[in-house]
Parts: sequence; structure tokens; C-alpha cells
Amino acid sequence: MKAEIIAVGTELLLGQIVNTNAQYLSRGLAALGIDVYYQTVVGDNKERLIRAIEIARERADLLVFTGGLGPTLDDLTRDALAEYLGRGIELHEPSMEKIEAMFAGRGGVFIESNRRQALLIEGAAPLRNDTGLAVGNALAVDDTCYLLLPGPPREMKPMFDNDGSAWLREQLGPSEALHSVLLKFAGIGESALEDLLIDLIREQSDPTIAPYAKEGEVAIRVSTKAGAAEEAAGKLDRTLALIRDRTSAYLFAEEDVPIETTIVRKLTEMRKTLTLAESCTGGLVSQLVTTVPGSAVVYVGGVVSYSNAVKHKQIGVPMALLEGPDAPGAISAETAAAMAEGMRASADADFALSVTGNAGPAAAEDKPVGLVYVGLAERGRETRVEKLQLAGDREGIRIRAAKRALYMLWQSLTGRA
Amino acid sequence: MKAEIIAVGTELLLGQIVNTNAQYLSRGLAALGIDVYYQTVVGDNKERLIRAIEIARERADLLVFTGGLGPTLDDLTRDALAEYLGRGIELHEPSMEKIEAMFAGRGGVFIESNRRQALLIEGAAPLRNDTGLAVGNALAVDDTCYLLLPGPPREMKPMFDNDGSAWLREQLGPSEALHSVLLKFAGIGESALEDLLIDLIREQSDPTIAPYAKEGEVAIRVSTKAGAAEEAAGKLDRTLALIRDRTSAYLFAEEDVPIETTIVRKLTEMRKTLTLAESCTGGLVSQLVTTVPGSAVVYVGGVVSYSNAVKHKQIGVPMALLEGPDAPGAISAETAAAMAEGMRASADADFALSVTGNAGPAAAEDKPVGLVYVGLAERGRETRVEKLQLAGDREGIRIRAAKRALYMLWQSLTGRA
Repeated sequence: MKAEIIAVGTELLLGQIVNTNAQYLSRGLAALGIDVYYQTVVGDNKERLIRAIEIARERADLLVFTGGLGPTLDDLTRDALAEYLGRGIELHEPSMEKIEAMFAGRGGVFIESNRRQALLIEGAAPLRNDTGLAVGNALAVDDTCYLLLPGPPREMKPMFDNDGSAWLREQLGPSEALHSVLLKFAGIGESALEDLLIDLIREQSDPTIAPYAKEGEVAIRVSTKAGAAEEAAGKLDRTLALIRDRTSAYLFAEEDVPIETTIVRKLTEMRKTLTLAESCTGGLVSQLVTTVPGSAVVYVGGVVSYSNAVKHKQIGVPMALLEGPDAPGAISAETAAAMAEGMRASADADFALSVTGNAGPAAAEDKPVGLVYVGLAERGRETRVEKLQLAGDREGIRIRAAKRALYMLWQSLTGRA
Repeated sequence: MKAEIIAVGTELLLGQIVNTNAQYLSRGLAALGIDVYYQTVVGDNKERLIRAIEIARERADLLVFTGGLGPTLDDLTRDALAEYLGRGIELHEPSMEKIEAMFAGRGGVFIESNRRQALLIEGAAPLRNDTGLAVGNALAVDDTCYLLLPGPPREMKPMFDNDGSAWLREQLGPSEALHSVLLKFAGIGESALEDLLIDLIREQSDPTIAPYAKEGEVAIRVSTKAGAAEEAAGKLDRTLALIRDRTSAYLFAEEDVPIETTIVRKLTEMRKTLTLAESCTGGLVSQLVTTVPGSAVVYVGGVVSYSNAVKHKQIGVPMALLEGPDAPGAISAETAAAMAEGMRASADADFALSVTGNAGPAAAEDKPVGLVYVGLAERGRETRVEKLQLAGDREGIRIRAAKRALYMLWQSLTGRA
């Protein structure tokens, strides 16, 4: 099945928002085994939208729309497709009841235009909206499938993941549906990981192995299209076992989570605590860890020691390490170790990570941009320090340094170091 | 002039990356007075790319491409357009010399495929690439303009902003070119700002006033298309004066920078220092401030006090405030004030911001999700605390709280509070 994603909304053409929906749907469709050949963005204009539908129909057999299902007159995706297909519009009673109940519950006056959010193209299956009011539409006409989803990501994502994907699986039939597992890696770059798996990647036909790179983390999706769920699981298992065996030093999750989530879960399970002492990452590691709900149970807090005074006073790094003609300086293995040890002792935590380095743009202490030291202090174990020379701009260096520090902790928590 | 943006890259269709280039270019083109009617994404496939060019030619008179200018055989945007136009390819000598010099400088072996990055479509003007090797192409053929830009945002953005925009302005001519000023606001929501300017927005024709909202910050672009630069400046000035007069409590910049940049600049100018004590924002304020190059001059560092122990030990918040049946607790105005004052004294800084609250997802200390206190302590001035009740999910609450704290500091630095 070949798909085209059509995002409808003038705000996208004005650059007011980024089309993250297209990425989410592309990944979701790929995971179902559906190839996306084009993505299109068109404004809230019926004539231009119908023209985009005509073009998409010539080159795809699944059209996935986002946006234009809301209450206002600008929301015209449903009307445009109905007009193109020569079909009527009908009211979906359960959606209408839900909208009325919502207004009644709020004690507000019912706004007539909200009725529009309960409308379906004649013959379309309704797609449940758990996080909003507009009902989704799914219909197959003349060998072409149409999926109409809302624009706001918090409504679009659950609708696609639930009713939308289920409906698509039905259209695909069992032999076409894709089964896949996502593997997440840290501490290794995309090309080094590919080297480890090069024979598997070269020989791949079924299952397929597709790498994805993000700054500081790499993912691989292992997929098979063949047969029923059980058969697919058997095929995947053999390939997964080979990959796990070669990459166990880097493989931190078999689902789409960042390494900080794995670490917070692991620390929670072990009932251990963490503190952080950051210089060049400026609070980024702390920000990543606290993005995970429930992190307060294991993360006690930390210090951003941008100046030597704070390194000394808040963390207890000796001034002799930081300043003076023979001092190793703030950007050094000695300071990284002292930061981790001082912070761990001060916060009385089980683990402390430290990061100190030069994220650029200019050299500091005569040390090159990209030179970073990460340290790990543990209760009752020797402190370790790693020296890194990272490439990229300021933001790239900061994110890679942060992820590398988290990787060091993960290695320790899982007995890999 | 009507534009279509064509992003070329299979990684976009697989959902491996988000098409942020389309947003950047849409905003940039809007700022030049060029309307974007469609955005298209197509994979690294010459046939499908040529088909996309044919379609775009029918509905636009400017085609802006991103991606497909690199060294590999997958990079085929230039070849596809040359084939479509029936033109040859020629070597751009200065770009070739730059590439060779780069390889010679690294002492590496010259990789022949890099030659491809110095190629131009016959008759195209070269667009300088300050951050990479691939030269851009600009050409006008049969009343249609073509702009070929690289895919990596760090190469695409400066090329578009410099040579790309200059070339487009020439194509537009003086009477069509848009002149605009971007105004950035903090401490006020989009709808409240619109209320302040409602008569100007309603009556607008020339200049136009377009609002943009981001989490925690709002922007307005004031634009005029008419006449020469001087005439445009006169028109803009009258409207800008009216807006400045009504919004001076919130207007922190007249260029596209975040509030943390304005604050770092202001502190540098005043030779003052800043420290931070963060609870629910978990290091986000620190991370924002340290994103600004040169922030190390004014930001001494701070503490992320996720636990009461760290609040007490690292910042000196009295335990009597934090724990006990009659204590106001960690999420309170008293604790916000004590965090700011304790941190300022400990780091011996001129200013200290504090943030404490509940970012969710669950209630904490029986305090509702979204309840946040921000504090500001200044050398020689009374400490101020603001109570906020913020809406949104965990990330939304965190970013709004962080921006609100920065706004409080900006008010003080500029004598507004």
C-alpha cells in the first residue's frame, strides 16, 4: 500500500507551526508496513485542497489527512473530500451526544458550530477521539482508502494509534501487515553500530533492519511483513537474538524511550538515588532526567557549576584544582572526578554524574571546543572519568555530552562497567 | 509571487526527521512578502521528484528545494531539475577550490564524490555555503524561479538568510518586497496581547499585524509591502510607535531572539551576575540561559533542588519551612522566597531566580498540578514572589514557569518592576 499524507492548515504554510504530524504518521505507517511516497501541506482552501486530493489519488492508494475537522468554517477537509467523492454528510449521533454532554457538564451555552465536529462523510466509519471532540473518518472508495484525523497532535496521535491503525490493519489483511520491534542504543554512533551488524544489514530481506539516528542516541527498527502474528514473532526473535548478542553493551531499551527513562526506572527499581554536577551542559542532564514523570523519587537534585566559585563552594572542588599556573583547570579529568565525588557526598546520593568541558563557540582555558570530561561517582566504588572529543555546534556538543554521561550511569546500573 | 517548498529526502518520508526546514522557509518567505501555497515532501527518487516539479510548476512561480545537494548518488535534486529544464551541469570553480582546500587542510584523501557538491545547473547563480560544502543554486527560467538549498538546517538557514534572500529580493523588485519587523513579548498570552491591540489588528491593511504564539512567548510581525525602503520605514514606524506605547510592559525584543538572550545581553552590559534555584523546572531555566553563547560571563551557576534535603543543604532553606504539620511546604511563597534569597547569598550573585511548584502529572503536597511560585532576590532590594496557576501538560507547565521567571527578571533589569 502506498500512502500520501496531506496536512491541511494555513498555519503550516505561514510557518507558525512545524508539521510534526507528518513525521509521527510516517513512522506509524512505516511500522504498519505502509510506504509513504509523498507528504503534502495545503492551506484552508477548498479548491486547492480538492486539487491536492486529485493529485494524491493518482499516486497513492491511501490518503491520510490531518487537520480541518474542527468546528469553524475554516475546517473543511471533510466537506472537500465529500464533494470530491460526490457523497453526502451525515450526523454521527454518539459523537453529537458526547459534545452536548460536554457542554452541559460545563454549564455553558451550546455553540451550534460544534455540531460540525460530529459529522461523517456518508458511509465512513467513525474513529473515536479520546482527547477531543472531532470524530475521525475512515472510508474505502474505489480501491482508495481515506483516513481523516484531527490536526492537534494530542488528538491525532491517540486516534491514529487506536482506531486508525486498527482500521488500516483490516484494510491491509494479515499477510501485508508489518510486525516490528524498535531497539534503542546509547554510547555508540550510527556508523559504528552498522559496522557491528553489517552482515545482517547486507543480507537483510526478511526481517528488515532500518537504523534511525538522533543526536546522542541511535535506534534500529527490525520488521517483518510475513504471515500471522505468531510466525512473525518467530522470525523476529531469531534476528533480535543475534542483534542483542552483539550489541548488549549499548542496547538500553526495546521500545521508543530515551535513556533517561530507562535510568529513572532502573534507579526506582533499585531504590537508589542520583545527583548531578554539570558545567558545560548547563542543566541539560537535569532537565532530561526531570522530564521523566516520577523522577523526583530517585533524583534528589544537583548543581549547575558554571563558575569556579560555585564548583568550589557548592560542590567542594578544591581551588587548587581550578586555578593557578599548575592547576589542571575546570576542564580536566581531575575536576570531573572532584565534581562527581563532591556532589555525591554533599547530596548523600548513591550515584553522582559530572560533566565539564567546552561546548564552544570559543576555546576556554586554551582547551579546544568539544573537549568534555564526564565523571561517575558511586557509593563504595572507585570514581570513573571519561574524556570525550565531541563534534558539532554548541547544542550538538551539549546533547552528546549529556547522553554520554547518562550512558556511563546506565553501564554501571546494569553491571556493564 | 506564489511559492512551493519541495523538501527532498527519504528520511523525511520514513519519519526519521521532522521537516523543520519547511517551517523556517515558510516564515522566511512570508517575511519577504512571498505567499506559500503548498509544501511537498518527496523521496530520493529522480522520477518522482521530476513529477513533483511538474506539478509545482503548474501552481507556483517560485520553487524552493531543500536537500539532495550532497556528495552521494542519492543526492539528485540538481540533476533532476537540470533534466527537467533540459540544461547541463557545470563546475563552480571557487566551490571546488574550497572543497579541495578543506581536504588538504585535514590531510585526508580527496574523495571524488565531493566534486558533486561544487556543481551548478547551467546558468544558475551560486549561493554561498558558510557552514558546509554544497553550493546552492538560484535560477530563473521562463518566469519561474528556482532556489536549491542544502538539507541540513545549519547549512540551509544561513544560505537562505544571506545569498538566498538577497537573490529573491532582486527577483521581486522594490514594489513587491516586504519590509517587516518582528516584536517579541513575554509575560502576556496571545489573546491578552491581541486585546491590547484589537483596534489596530481590526483596522489593519497596511502595515499588516500577524501574531505568532509559542509556549511562554508571543511574537508579532508588522509588515508592509508598499514602496521603497524609506517609505516602508515611515509606514512601519507609525504603527510600531503605537504598539510599543501600549505593550512596553511586555515587549522585550524587536528581533527574533528568546527572552534569555535579551537577559544575558542586559546582564553583560550591566556587569551583573545571576544564579538560579530550580525545583519543578528541573534545570530548564539554567539550560535556556546557558544556550546563549557568552552566558558564562554573567551566569555563575545554580542548584536544582528536587528534594527537600538539597533545598536545605545546598540553598539553606530552613527545614521548618519545608516539613512539619504547620510548614508551608516546598511548594509555597515562603519557600520560593527562601530559595531565591539563600541561593543569591550562597553564590554571592546580584540576582537569583527561584521556581518551585507542581508540574504534574499527579498532585504533590496536596497542591494542584500547575501551581507554581517564582521568586526573585536582588542585592539590596526586597525579594518578590509571584504565584502562578499554569495550564498544560508537564512539559507545557515547565516551559511556561521557566519563561515567567525569566520575565520577572527582565522586568527588574529594565526598571519595569
